[in-house]
Amino acid sequence: MKILVINCGSSSVKYQLIDMSNEDLLAQGLVERVGIDGSILTQKVKGRDKYIVQVPMKDHKEAISHALNALVDKTNGVIKSMDEISAVGHRVVHGGEKYSQSVLVNDEVMDYLEECVKLAPLHNRPNIIGIEACKALMPRIPMAVVFDTAFHGTMPKRAYLYPLPYELYEKHGIRKYGFHGTSHKYVSQKVAQVMGKNIEDINIISCHIGNGASITAIKGGKSIDTSMGFTPLDGVAMGTRSGSIDPAIIMYLVKELGYTIDEVSEILNKKSGVLGITSISSDLRDIKEAAYNNENEIAKLALDIFSYKIKTQIGAYAAALGGVDVIVFTAGIGENSFETRIDILEGLEYMGVHLNKERNKVMGEIALISTDDSKVKVYVIPTNEELMIAKETRDLLH
Amino acid sequence: MKILVINCGSSSVKYQLIDMSNEDLLAQGLVERVGIDGSILTQKVKGRDKYIVQVPMKDHKEAISHALNALVDKTNGVIKSMDEISAVGHRVVHGGEKYSQSVLVNDEVMDYLEECVKLAPLHNRPNIIGIEACKALMPRIPMAVVFDTAFHGTMPKRAYLYPLPYELYEKHGIRKYGFHGTSHKYVSQKVAQVMGKNIEDINIISCHIGNGASITAIKGGKSIDTSMGFTPLDGVAMGTRSGSIDPAIIMYLVKELGYTIDEVSEILNKKSGVLGITSISSDLRDIKEAAYNNENEIAKLALDIFSYKIKTQIGAYAAALGGVDVIVFTAGIGENSFETRIDILEGLEYMGVHLNKERNKVMGEIALISTDDSKVKVYVIPTNEELMIAKETRDLLH
Repeated sequence: MKILVINCGSSSVKYQLIDMSNEDLLAQGLVERVGIDGSILTQKVKGRDKYIVQVPMKDHKEAISHALNALVDKTNGVIKSMDEISAVGHRVVHGGEKYSQSVLVNDEVMDYLEECVKLAPLHNRPNIIGIEACKALMPRIPMAVVFDTAFHGTMPKRAYLYPLPYELYEKHGIRKYGFHGTSHKYVSQKVAQVMGKNIEDINIISCHIGNGASITAIKGGKSIDTSMGFTPLDGVAMGTRSGSIDPAIIMYLVKELGYTIDEVSEILNKKSGVLGITSISSDLRDIKEAAYNNENEIAKLALDIFSYKIKTQIGAYAAALGGVDVIVFTAGIGENSFETRIDILEGLEYMGVHLNKERNKVMGEIALISTDDSKVKVYVIPTNEELMIAKETRDLLH
Repeated sequence: MKILVINCGSSSVKYQLIDMSNEDLLAQGLVERVGIDGSILTQKVKGRDKYIVQVPMKDHKEAISHALNALVDKTNGVIKSMDEISAVGHRVVHGGEKYSQSVLVNDEVMDYLEECVKLAPLHNRPNIIGIEACKALMPRIPMAVVFDTAFHGTMPKRAYLYPLPYELYEKHGIRKYGFHGTSHKYVSQKVAQVMGKNIEDINIISCHIGNGASITAIKGGKSIDTSMGFTPLDGVAMGTRSGSIDPAIIMYLVKELGYTIDEVSEILNKKSGVLGITSISSDLRDIKEAAYNNENEIAKLALDIFSYKIKTQIGAYAAALGGVDVIVFTAGIGENSFETRIDILEGLEYMGVHLNKERNKVMGEIALISTDDSKVKVYVIPTNEELMIAKETRDLLH
């Protein structure tokens, strides 16, 4: 069984074709600049040169059409016909309160996705457009939607309800939803498997740290709290996002400093985080370069703040879980930045965390990085959201 | 040496006269409805009936004048003349970045307090008015200001800097200041004394939990982080304040739901917290009554959220400190609500916290409430901000 995984952004389409018999990645591609001058499709297949298609692609439907053509292309493709695709799994960011699991696409689901657009307009709109495009191009192939919020549907009310007037929750759905759910689910299941443990029996804190970052407390395989909230702005400091700040700062920016609410939103989402502190870059690699090689003090400070926020979030979730058995690092920074992992874990010996600095030098592969006698195990587990989406899609077909 | 401690609110004056030779509270008073119809002064002296004065008091100067009269009153007073007052200590909420300790009042200090008004207009303005009134009424008596922010002046930059554009800090002073500093300082010093420990040698988490609430991480006697931030809105859930929420919720309230920024400010400061969740009361005693005696589910939820936020904040600060030696509970709820202390500490055994439920039944007095073999000691320490202000004032005179 081969499953196509689609992830549509506002001007991009990512796709992967996965053979579920052995979880082999047959092909992966990225269409960029959809609807913009200079559209370009890049497809990678293991052991081959990149296949690049540069033609105008005026919308997501055209982009997905070119992706399908690339997959069946006689020279550069990996399948003979589209009939080999058993199902399509779509990543959808926001599933609102209704869906705490993946679902097969039908009219009711599509109507609900429309309702959720207001909760995540930048993300859900392109996701819907991608599903509609696939329905038009592959009308007979079953499709599933896998929500970034779904894994967090198990959070108890004490974790997801904000201390705000209750009617803001009841009437307007203002609550913590959490994001990166597919990634947190994948790495938590994977680490239990690697440890040879039943996931029911362990408390996990998973740290998905990329340009966006979220930390999740997982008890018995279920998310019980997570650092992103109503939107992906909340929680720890990120590449360009502030994470959690005193809400009164927003009032101050508007009332005292004369910013509009749109400007504040732009500042908190696009001009804050390590970029805001340093004015150097939103990419932690650039910040590390400046801090380590150029002794840039503000870059050092940004790294310090970045790690400190994650450290204290881990401490908070150890308390939420009543103690932790394993900490998992994943995503771009989590998998690769061993210096950041050292900074984050420093001082957590009191809860039984002991890092093995030699083992910790690993980048981007599954590894135990704590010492043998560390009470809390620490692992690097590369995330694979696409494989998780493909698995969820397969499971829904059965 | 007798020191008068003054704490001016927008329409109130609290005062205490303390004999520093034995730290005896000679008299304490409260003037309410200053500048409003129905002004009333109530003065309490140990072993006597309350002394009540009901006359119009059109401003803080008149209120303080009546307070001084009450103190020297032949029948109801406690001193013969104002000459017995060696100094006045004023509580001032916001000391900005400049003052990380108490200072004697002079023109430079007064100018700086004016500058700080924009950071805390609701609090600093009445504080200044109170100082000016005292200067007019007692021109020859030295005065000190003791800032609610000062104790947190030792926070490292990684704790006080928000991940926002750096110029918001440099140009506009947007950073974490922290509050309840006088209380956190008092109880941390007191608990070290009670334990017979050198405060330099211990890590303390102090939980000031009243209608406002803040948690502070104290290393070697110095605040290294605290849950309130740029303003007292940040941090844990409170009586009417939301504490920390996803900042994007504010944008959503304004852009999608049509609230003005003033309405949002009013909601987050006055209509959130346990009042917002329950619509019952901002007073935790009422919420407990509803939860325990009337099985009110929403009241139970509010208690659950209230305790959970503090529990995870303690977890976060254990990580910030690299482990904790003692947790202190103080202020109205912290000193008196033993059920809340149970809820907060439940599940913290992993970090060495073991509550003795019998000892924990204590209310409003100094007590060790952890078990004898608890690695982390837990204490109830009644706060005494006024005594701390008097001590700081005395120390400045020497």
